[in-house]
Amino acid sequence: MTPSSPTVLVLDAEPPPRLGRLTGRARIVHTDAAHLAGHLPAADVLLVWDFTSGAVREAWPGGGPRPRWVHTASAGVDHLLCPELAASDTVVTNARGIFERPIAEYVAALVLAVAKDLPRTLEYQRERVWRHRETRRVAGTRACVVGSGPVGRAIVRTLKALDVTTALVGRVPRAGIHGPADLDRLLSRADWVIAAAPLTERTYGMFDAHRFDVMQPSAFFVNVGRGPLVDEDALAAALTRRWIAGAALDVFAAEPLPAESPLWGLPGLLVSPHMSGDTVGWRDELSVQFVEMYERWAAGRSLPNVVDKQRGYVPGH
Amino acid sequence: MTPSSPTVLVLDAEPPPRLGRLTGRARIVHTDAAHLAGHLPAADVLLVWDFTSGAVREAWPGGGPRPRWVHTASAGVDHLLCPELAASDTVVTNARGIFERPIAEYVAALVLAVAKDLPRTLEYQRERVWRHRETRRVAGTRACVVGSGPVGRAIVRTLKALDVTTALVGRVPRAGIHGPADLDRLLSRADWVIAAAPLTERTYGMFDAHRFDVMQPSAFFVNVGRGPLVDEDALAAALTRRWIAGAALDVFAAEPLPAESPLWGLPGLLVSPHMSGDTVGWRDELSVQFVEMYERWAAGRSLPNVVDKQRGYVPGH
Repeated sequence: MTPSSPTVLVLDAEPPPRLGRLTGRARIVHTDAAHLAGHLPAADVLLVWDFTSGAVREAWPGGGPRPRWVHTASAGVDHLLCPELAASDTVVTNARGIFERPIAEYVAALVLAVAKDLPRTLEYQRERVWRHRETRRVAGTRACVVGSGPVGRAIVRTLKALDVTTALVGRVPRAGIHGPADLDRLLSRADWVIAAAPLTERTYGMFDAHRFDVMQPSAFFVNVGRGPLVDEDALAAALTRRWIAGAALDVFAAEPLPAESPLWGLPGLLVSPHMSGDTVGWRDELSVQFVEMYERWAAGRSLPNVVDKQRGYVPGH
Repeated sequence: MTPSSPTVLVLDAEPPPRLGRLTGRARIVHTDAAHLAGHLPAADVLLVWDFTSGAVREAWPGGGPRPRWVHTASAGVDHLLCPELAASDTVVTNARGIFERPIAEYVAALVLAVAKDLPRTLEYQRERVWRHRETRRVAGTRACVVGSGPVGRAIVRTLKALDVTTALVGRVPRAGIHGPADLDRLLSRADWVIAAAPLTERTYGMFDAHRFDVMQPSAFFVNVGRGPLVDEDALAAALTRRWIAGAALDVFAAEPLPAESPLWGLPGLLVSPHMSGDTVGWRDELSVQFVEMYERWAAGRSLPNVVDKQRGYVPGH
């Protein structure tokens, strides 16, 4: 390592794999949430490996120099953006490219499992009951995917491959993407409503009582974006009152979901532990992605996946 | 109805819908298994609506005239073919076109649900346990689909749409289809093995101890064909000894599967009640298909979906 090697501060609970490739080219300092503030002034780069932590948002506003580049090993950046970081010259990047395909497959798995009544099949098996049922064809059904970033677009591609008719809704209407003005109309005729939007001021709580009210009684709602996109009480009421047929949440306002949460036992609700994007090898992929971005950064080249800190996500094509 | 209207004998437990379209053009006689033999000599056409019954195979060899045309509301014809019927001039047709897409979607649902560990997610939810797991990407995995008829080909199309690498195995090798000589090699590197073959003398018990032995320990086996394709004891042993990772059976040697069958509780085995092809409206579709075929037959035109009675299925393109 040369004396001039940049310092990479890593916020982690357990260390990322494969950072050994940076040996001699960076000074790696590991920290946890409690010690983050003390390390920030000496860091050139901050790698937010523990993306479940809100520590950056809390520590960033403190005094002293700040890293010039912050990378998060996640698609969403809601856990780290604060007004001071947004107003600064620091570049923020995300892990675009790692999670899209796994999340799209996960959504397809949910859609198909629900259409084919698989959860009930598992229940009947436990009871050793042979009960034939008619299931649904997925081809020809309609999906409304909310969030026109890479995750939303990957979901659309995968559902289209299954011959589902899809509509994609984004912040502003453009070619092939509907704007918010179309949302209620699209929700009212969707068999599948998929939330895959970033968490921003505009999207916070967007799936509220009104939105569940306009959906069809046969609609199935899936959230693979961020928990606070959904008013969880409104969803619970919609399921209890049968405004919609069912839902699957992979993300929650509070994670891990507390054992005493009523969501665990809500009829028609499938709960999974924020894992839709995490396929075998994902940690390796995230590390390799960071190392490659670091090499570009150290060489003075431009970075990919740069977050628009005002909007709260990487602007799409 | 004219005096010359043909007699259509319907073997059913509950009558098919939508046969009213034949009013005045056919004399419809309903029968059950016990009375089938007595009605056969007077029937011009036999509609095997209750395709779970083996009554045709038992009643056909008796004396007297026999229907000139037998149609079964199923893809498989193993439940009705007997040597006397095979040797006769009677035309046998099946319900090709109705079940392919639903079965293909059902297989995709199983593959994705297993890759995404959905059954375990449902278990953890019941226990209110938040346990993150890494799941598998389906894209890039390998499937071996055994049975190159319309069902097998539909399964290949759907899995390919999910970017699964597929190999299709049929009775004889031809363009895009492997012959039996390739089977063991293909099984040995498949992540997913899908049985979708007709039940014939050649396929009876083909998934035996040897076949499960050559599969990878990570392999998942699915049977949406006919129960007797599989040596159920060999499968149970393979699962118990962890030769393969798991299996899903939609069809069984004995249906309904008796409550005392050990298969219900076998670790890694998903049991469903012969429903993979049955989507909402399937009975209507089967009836409409028969009525349209009847109209062709009554007009003296050639019938589609004609079964090769020696081979036991409709020969493919």
